[in-house]
Amino acid sequence: MTGWLIIAGLGPGSDELMTPEVSAALDEASDIVGYSTYVDRLKPRLGVALHGSDNREELKRARDALALAEDGRNVVIVSSGDPGVFAMAAAVFEAIEGEPRWQKLDIRVLPGITAMLAAAAAAGAPLGHDFCAINLSDNLKPWELIERRLRLATEADLALALYNPRSKSRPQGFAKALGVLREACGTERLVTFARAVSTPEQTIVTVELGEAVPEMADMQTVVIVGSSSTRRVGNWIYTPRRAVS
Amino acid sequence: MTGWLIIAGLGPGSDELMTPEVSAALDEASDIVGYSTYVDRLKPRLGVALHGSDNREELKRARDALALAEDGRNVVIVSSGDPGVFAMAAAVFEAIEGEPRWQKLDIRVLPGITAMLAAAAAAGAPLGHDFCAINLSDNLKPWELIERRLRLATEADLALALYNPRSKSRPQGFAKALGVLREACGTERLVTFARAVSTPEQTIVTVELGEAVPEMADMQTVVIVGSSSTRRVGNWIYTPRRAVS
Repeated sequence: MTGWLIIAGLGPGSDELMTPEVSAALDEASDIVGYSTYVDRLKPRLGVALHGSDNREELKRARDALALAEDGRNVVIVSSGDPGVFAMAAAVFEAIEGEPRWQKLDIRVLPGITAMLAAAAAAGAPLGHDFCAINLSDNLKPWELIERRLRLATEADLALALYNPRSKSRPQGFAKALGVLREACGTERLVTFARAVSTPEQTIVTVELGEAVPEMADMQTVVIVGSSSTRRVGNWIYTPRRAVS
Repeated sequence: MTGWLIIAGLGPGSDELMTPEVSAALDEASDIVGYSTYVDRLKPRLGVALHGSDNREELKRARDALALAEDGRNVVIVSSGDPGVFAMAAAVFEAIEGEPRWQKLDIRVLPGITAMLAAAAAAGAPLGHDFCAINLSDNLKPWELIERRLRLATEADLALALYNPRSKSRPQGFAKALGVLREACGTERLVTFARAVSTPEQTIVTVELGEAVPEMADMQTVVIVGSSSTRRVGNWIYTPRRAVS
């Protein structure tokens, strides 16, 4: 009996944004493992075991999933968005690093539409030129490193997609980040707050940095800060393909 | 008669990575517009007009598609990967900026799996921590700006996804980029060359920067340069979620 482990991205919310490859994997799974909110999003299917767990237990969840695959189960770990972008794939490889026998397991990573791509599409094309993706959570890195990256990324004139801008346990970080960005880019830089993208609760709001306040974001929000050339055309926001030094 | 324009991402190659939303749009289109290579990838359907054009004519292609939608046609512009990442969405908004009456058209952008996400999934999770996406083509920006961004991104210790590393008309740029990266990161940094991801021709090769040569990349390749903490575990490449200053 040979098990396997697939680490799959569900996309940002709508089933219309889940790839056929991921749908097929879910159909073949004996066990589906993930943060309860994402596991609950799936349509229940007869005979499949659902293992929902708390958001903060990523490494334990990865180890549990690997142990199930080792036992011969067909396991899918689900992430929102893309599993390789601030999600479960890195946690699984961390778990494997600590337990070399798991390296022999049949493991595949299936990409998904990550939040910044769906947010950018809903707003127009703010990531149409060079950009970066930065996780604003300081759970796993020091705040000083986040500030340093924000400064260097704006110095490089990249657009910025900011993940996990704000949570109940970290209410101050995003206010500090907005301060750093205003200092680096001035008050007129465009900022898009994209919340619950592709779900019925989707909201897309674009303001200038001078008007941005921390309360515009929560953990369901991805924030896109434009580069110096990001601008409005009609109701859209976009960054031109062309840039000068 | 009201037309519409959808700017859709086909994903990196395999139909299994195309979202249901994009498949549905292609089914409803009267006209499909795009670079011939991508248009030819689609299954022909009775009654749909296919408009393939040359790769370098992005702005003209955008204008042609907008004119068709204005004439009442249901138009899908296709891009490989995600339309908002170094692809057609920004070109469409540029065209609209020059022709304000087009702002009233019914326009939607549908996201897709961009090459770096599919490449990262095939390699493991090299983009599992903060990263950036930089287009190495100097067709629309000066080379100095590309070098500057490479230096600042490595100073910020981001992983780098490099698009359009090398073409016949720009044979020297990628060699220069590798030189800049070796100077900034040393020779042991891991570099993944992901070619034709998700197609039958897919190849994934990871080497150290000291061993990387320009000929490892072509226009079908996305190159992922790791951060200082990117490493191998078994046959996989990943960047841990945790980082220190």
